[in-house]
Amino acid sequence: MPNKTIYLDYAAATPLDSNVLAAMQPYLTDIFYNPSAPYQPAREVRVDIENTRASVARTIGAKPTEIIFTAGATESINLAFNIDGHVITTQTEHAAVLQAAKLHSGSTFVGVNEKGRVDPRDIKKSITPQTTLVSVGLVNNETGTAQDIKAVAKVISDERQNRVKNDNPTPIYLHTDVSQAVGILDINVARLGVDMMTLNGAKIYGPKQTGVLYLNSSIDLQPIIAGGGQERGLRSGTENVANIIGLGMAIEVAERKRKTEVERLQKIRLQLLGILQESFDELIVIGDQKHNSPHILTVAWPGLDAERILFALESQDILVATGSACAANKDTRSHVLTAMGLEPDIIDGSLRFSFGRPTTTQDIGTAAKIIVETIKQERDRGTRIRQ
Amino acid sequence: MPNKTIYLDYAAATPLDSNVLAAMQPYLTDIFYNPSAPYQPAREVRVDIENTRASVARTIGAKPTEIIFTAGATESINLAFNIDGHVITTQTEHAAVLQAAKLHSGSTFVGVNEKGRVDPRDIKKSITPQTTLVSVGLVNNETGTAQDIKAVAKVISDERQNRVKNDNPTPIYLHTDVSQAVGILDINVARLGVDMMTLNGAKIYGPKQTGVLYLNSSIDLQPIIAGGGQERGLRSGTENVANIIGLGMAIEVAERKRKTEVERLQKIRLQLLGILQESFDELIVIGDQKHNSPHILTVAWPGLDAERILFALESQDILVATGSACAANKDTRSHVLTAMGLEPDIIDGSLRFSFGRPTTTQDIGTAAKIIVETIKQERDRGTRIRQ
Repeated sequence: MPNKTIYLDYAAATPLDSNVLAAMQPYLTDIFYNPSAPYQPAREVRVDIENTRASVARTIGAKPTEIIFTAGATESINLAFNIDGHVITTQTEHAAVLQAAKLHSGSTFVGVNEKGRVDPRDIKKSITPQTTLVSVGLVNNETGTAQDIKAVAKVISDERQNRVKNDNPTPIYLHTDVSQAVGILDINVARLGVDMMTLNGAKIYGPKQTGVLYLNSSIDLQPIIAGGGQERGLRSGTENVANIIGLGMAIEVAERKRKTEVERLQKIRLQLLGILQESFDELIVIGDQKHNSPHILTVAWPGLDAERILFALESQDILVATGSACAANKDTRSHVLTAMGLEPDIIDGSLRFSFGRPTTTQDIGTAAKIIVETIKQERDRGTRIRQ
Repeated sequence: MPNKTIYLDYAAATPLDSNVLAAMQPYLTDIFYNPSAPYQPAREVRVDIENTRASVARTIGAKPTEIIFTAGATESINLAFNIDGHVITTQTEHAAVLQAAKLHSGSTFVGVNEKGRVDPRDIKKSITPQTTLVSVGLVNNETGTAQDIKAVAKVISDERQNRVKNDNPTPIYLHTDVSQAVGILDINVARLGVDMMTLNGAKIYGPKQTGVLYLNSSIDLQPIIAGGGQERGLRSGTENVANIIGLGMAIEVAERKRKTEVERLQKIRLQLLGILQESFDELIVIGDQKHNSPHILTVAWPGLDAERILFALESQDILVATGSACAANKDTRSHVLTAMGLEPDIIDGSLRFSFGRPTTTQDIGTAAKIIVETIKQERDRGTRIRQ
């Protein structure tokens, strides 16, 4: 990345933390052994993997045996969904959750309010005696809106009591995707009240295609990738040791920096929001401002062509997003903003700014000035065309 | 790895080639963008991925759209097996193939002869009108024995003609796992006559958990990991760019060095085999010596405790294998050697030596001396105990 570039798309991708890369480096060079081999140098690699597993478990309040290392959050999610029965999720989940849910027939996709929040009562209403899985992401990747997972967990726990009363032996589990929440919110599985949880290395300055599925020890899942029996038989394949070590370090660093980083990001977010609100009366802030991750700011200028703005900003070395990166090259309106009931002219006029550890208040000062000027120019151009 | 260690377990794991690590490095640092993002630096990453795809395609004689990047050979194999219908494979395949086949009910596991070769006529006999997939690995990881994939392909092609005659519209495909054959044998998909092929980065000096599934464009597979739609919808999840670039380089280097490396490895293998045969009248060479990969030498001393030898050699800084690494920590006899009809005292007395690019004739000279001494000592000890 050229030095002058101001990257404001950390929700799409993060660079490797220098501690993460340093932790990985020995496993990319000298320590290349197959952790299943019987000799001592290989057994030491096995110990390194297990120490990382224990560290991740400690961070999220789980047992080491409940940590499954996968090749990415999408894989973790697909594994979590490899369960029989009726599935419930929300309309604003990441494509990985939506598509995994669609592999089940008859899945229920619960709506959200105009701020992007799901009402736990709507989830309660969708539960049938056959429901086995409810999946609600903690922080939305397009808006930063956080869901009340604890309230959803209460619904699940009530349903469990109902089933005991009704002699219904069907288990019901709560899965949450915390890809955008690690290093931002509390991800202790007991405090959240979840049975399965997906973590994503690629969004927290760890290696890409690294993930964790936390799987409560009471749950009996079937693998989607069978073979040598690694990861308790739930993810076969010789372990990518460097990536596991890197992921562990990424989670450790994220948790260590969490408190100070959240405060810093909050200031940065309010700084940019303040400047934009001062400059544009028509500005619409998207998401639930009371329950929003500080690393994402999604706003809209109704009627603006946000895609043109994205490229105009890029030509001035500022990188931002419209909708999620995964959907960006598909020429369709964001399913998240659509589910929130936003009008097409608001959706098409929306930009997502997302902040990361390297983002400074100076960056925001510089970027805000250029963003304001660019949008004013584009707005005036639009007005001239319409006249 | 300490300098004095002589590693003879390249079939279990290979170190990263320095060219591979160098190719990956920019994507582990500056070039971290999400390849689905719309701005230019991200689009350049997309181009880099597509160039790698084209290069892999060229190497194996396929179209770029037929190359699916996965997180490892085990995943590639599980994806190839995600097909309805009757499945046929051999009893000596890698655990990934055997377990993927077992996910299908009623799969057929064809036997092999005492040299580990499958008779294509046995595969022909196992085919039913419902058979959709036949999977035969090119080089066995425990013995180095190569199968006659072209003859198997002929069986499949004959069956296709039968089905046309019999108005049976069921497709039938041939998959081969070439994890142990890249850089050793010809892996051109047209010349082999295969419809699907699994490549493994971890065994060819590439990054671990990197794989390719070659998928002939006529085949309609369902994904096992759904989501954002990457890799033609067959392997969702933001791409691990560094690993893809590294895998591409590993395949390129392996193919470039193939001819000279095969000659070199053949000499090394014959050097060790010669010394062992000279030293031990009772030595049994396992596998088909007419059709064997030069990077693997599996031999047995009937009645010897190979596991004790492994650790005795380790204490003298020589690392070797007994059976495959994946099975080694499961305390069961090798399924490969068992399927070959070898007696338990031969299986328990077998060692696998596997050679790689860093292995020198000097290494083999040093190692052979220690191996011979160690085994003679152990044999004498055993004789003393029995007396």
